[in-house]
Amino acid sequence: MKTDSCETIAAISTAIGEGGIGIVRISGPRAFEIAEKIFKPRIKKSLFEFKNRTLYLGDIVDSNDEIIDEVLLAIFKAPHTYTREDMVEINCHGGLVAQKRILALVLDNGARLAEPGEFTKRAFLNGRIDLSQAEAVIDIIRAKTDRALAVANRRLTGEFSEKISKIRSNLLNVIAHIEANIDFPEDDIPEAEPEYISQEINNVLKMVEDLLRSAGSGRILREGLSTLILGNTNVGKSSLLNALLQEERAIVTDIPGTTRDIIEEYIDIQGIPIKIIDTAGIRQTTDEVEKIGINRAMKHLQEAELVLLMIDVSRKLTDDDKRLIELVGDKTTITVINKVDLPVAVDEYEIKKLVPEAKIVKVSALKQEGIDELKTVIYDTITEKMGFTDEGLIVASERQRRILEESREFLKSALCAMAEGVPIEMVEIDIRDAWEKLGEITGDTVSEDIINTIFQKFCIGK
Amino acid sequence: MKTDSCETIAAISTAIGEGGIGIVRISGPRAFEIAEKIFKPRIKKSLFEFKNRTLYLGDIVDSNDEIIDEVLLAIFKAPHTYTREDMVEINCHGGLVAQKRILALVLDNGARLAEPGEFTKRAFLNGRIDLSQAEAVIDIIRAKTDRALAVANRRLTGEFSEKISKIRSNLLNVIAHIEANIDFPEDDIPEAEPEYISQEINNVLKMVEDLLRSAGSGRILREGLSTLILGNTNVGKSSLLNALLQEERAIVTDIPGTTRDIIEEYIDIQGIPIKIIDTAGIRQTTDEVEKIGINRAMKHLQEAELVLLMIDVSRKLTDDDKRLIELVGDKTTITVINKVDLPVAVDEYEIKKLVPEAKIVKVSALKQEGIDELKTVIYDTITEKMGFTDEGLIVASERQRRILEESREFLKSALCAMAEGVPIEMVEIDIRDAWEKLGEITGDTVSEDIINTIFQKFCIGK
Repeated sequence: MKTDSCETIAAISTAIGEGGIGIVRISGPRAFEIAEKIFKPRIKKSLFEFKNRTLYLGDIVDSNDEIIDEVLLAIFKAPHTYTREDMVEINCHGGLVAQKRILALVLDNGARLAEPGEFTKRAFLNGRIDLSQAEAVIDIIRAKTDRALAVANRRLTGEFSEKISKIRSNLLNVIAHIEANIDFPEDDIPEAEPEYISQEINNVLKMVEDLLRSAGSGRILREGLSTLILGNTNVGKSSLLNALLQEERAIVTDIPGTTRDIIEEYIDIQGIPIKIIDTAGIRQTTDEVEKIGINRAMKHLQEAELVLLMIDVSRKLTDDDKRLIELVGDKTTITVINKVDLPVAVDEYEIKKLVPEAKIVKVSALKQEGIDELKTVIYDTITEKMGFTDEGLIVASERQRRILEESREFLKSALCAMAEGVPIEMVEIDIRDAWEKLGEITGDTVSEDIINTIFQKFCIGK
Repeated sequence: MKTDSCETIAAISTAIGEGGIGIVRISGPRAFEIAEKIFKPRIKKSLFEFKNRTLYLGDIVDSNDEIIDEVLLAIFKAPHTYTREDMVEINCHGGLVAQKRILALVLDNGARLAEPGEFTKRAFLNGRIDLSQAEAVIDIIRAKTDRALAVANRRLTGEFSEKISKIRSNLLNVIAHIEANIDFPEDDIPEAEPEYISQEINNVLKMVEDLLRSAGSGRILREGLSTLILGNTNVGKSSLLNALLQEERAIVTDIPGTTRDIIEEYIDIQGIPIKIIDTAGIRQTTDEVEKIGINRAMKHLQEAELVLLMIDVSRKLTDDDKRLIELVGDKTTITVINKVDLPVAVDEYEIKKLVPEAKIVKVSALKQEGIDELKTVIYDTITEKMGFTDEGLIVASERQRRILEESREFLKSALCAMAEGVPIEMVEIDIRDAWEKLGEITGDTVSEDIINTIFQKFCIGK
């Protein structure tokens, strides 16, 4: 597969919105030629004489020589660039109209608008990074917590790709061993010993299973642990959410407009992103009759990995409460007893009987009491009960997890076949399938469709 | 006034959100020292040996040497920088967590978070640009259309500042003339001739008035022309808004998340931003009883500079319609007759009688018919009836308009005093006041409070 390298692409590479600086990026064989046409540097020099990777002050001008914006521009000469192609970056004032006009000028002069992720796709197609590293790029951008960022960075360095390459090279050795035996059976090469082959496959299988074990934690880091605050009307769900969000919000609202787009609310507990499922009660839409709504709670429960079951300590348990508690079933649950600043009307023992597996935390959401303890209990529950760890964690994407699972099946099937004494040529097919499947992680054996699907998830300009 | 140049400041300078690239910017005496601590370049070189304005590839690492992000970093040596101080720009992957962590590291190492506009404020305080140019920077960022951008750019080049300096220097000549006469009355210097002084003041007054004349157009370009779509339930207000927005929306939705934050809707008609006032009818909130609500309409009407009065051609005029039409009063109005694809039930002549001044445009908002014609009529109304022009337009900010108005009053008062034969020393006070007031535009005579107010409107990171 080759990149269509005759095309020059361009996009706004910074986030869209109001900012101090915006970047328009160009990549491809005509990048310099296009930039030369629209850039008037303060220094009287042709763009082709610019020093590599050096920022020059000047103006972007349209065909009437009208100034569009004062910018800093740098050229990046192939092949040591993000895409391995000639690239230009234009740092302009961060207004949307200025950025759009500059982009429009670049497109008018012969570039085409880059597809989402196309810069990174070119980096992959031109061999600078493998597919797993490319996927790490988008995980870095989307990382919700420090830990998630650290794991994505580890993948970008190629640590994961190396492990996969190691596994594949082991498999290739086994295949070579079998092939030699098939091709030259009369030769002196020692016959493919079933024990040796079984052992090698077993080793590989173990490595694959180790990687898979961390896949669950990887998913949590990437997407956040789905958590439902379950409770009756007026039990204090919104107050609890606000109390949990408080610190994080304080950071986020430094910068206006950050949270407005977010439909899910994320809490960062020691680097683990906790995604609070958005329930009608939390959003407080004016209309919604905020009755329990067993059906709705059921639906949210299905999605949830963790339930925070809220009980109002100042009111006796109603039948509604009990029906709610029954819904929880065997979901991992933490019981949050709220309003501990009020007189107690609920028997804690009764609650303990209803949800025996759940730890109990007492809080006053309104007065911000017990919130740190609740966070600690949530963290302990995730690491202890749910087995979360980021020790050596490098698998993150759902795609990669599925590939590992499928490879595991091929390896198991090979082992099975060996045990049943199936001819070695037949076993080889399974081993080859595993080898090929694993190549999809790094992109060595991947189809164009899969590549396109991966890069479509990127943002434009990356 | 001096900048507190012992402090090093830092901020995320790109818009907040998901993007391909984000920039963290540092400015101040410790910028290089801080960056040196957290940046590991691929090339084995100290940051202090870096070439000026050149991008170096490397990693940002925390105190445990853990990689936070792979970045490009450039140093900018004072004084030829945006702030005239030492600066560092870190181009990182555009994720929010990565940017925040890098910023946090920079702050941990001795910088403090920049206030909104503080980089530009330093550029002003350090004498690189004047106050009017600094204000142009924010107008460039906030520009809503090409024309608004062009006008802001003209201001950034200092064209406006030059005009003000010219006016002030003329006033200073008059003052010197008067002073010479007061100080050395017995000398041979020709006596301050009242005619000469009056003429000079008149000349300056004319220049100020020319600038003021364009202030209205400047405001429209900066803020958009407030436009109300007025009409009864089901007359097709939302459809018309959608039809008007269509093209612009198509541009905006190239890039996800752009419009979500916008509470006002803007239409770009030949470079003039038209701000549609958000009415309950347009937003279609589920609850709101969408009856006329005379009070609400009145309120919106007060804010509106232009009214698009919508009539449903397929229904007879009701009393409600007529009450609505009466509300319009002497507001500049365009009558939009909608649903021209349906059978006609309204007498056009009757409408003409009710709002004789308004041009009539016939559309089918739903079928997108007549929309271009409506846009043309809107444009003609703005340029012809409202006298909009951007010919030589350079005044834009409300602050500048007020300064010009106050200066005009001082000049008029001086002329009045001259006519009444007030002693020349008294006239001089008015002239001095005008001279000083005008200095507030460029920042030559401005108070710290005003400066702070101006820069607070900026975004962080600029």
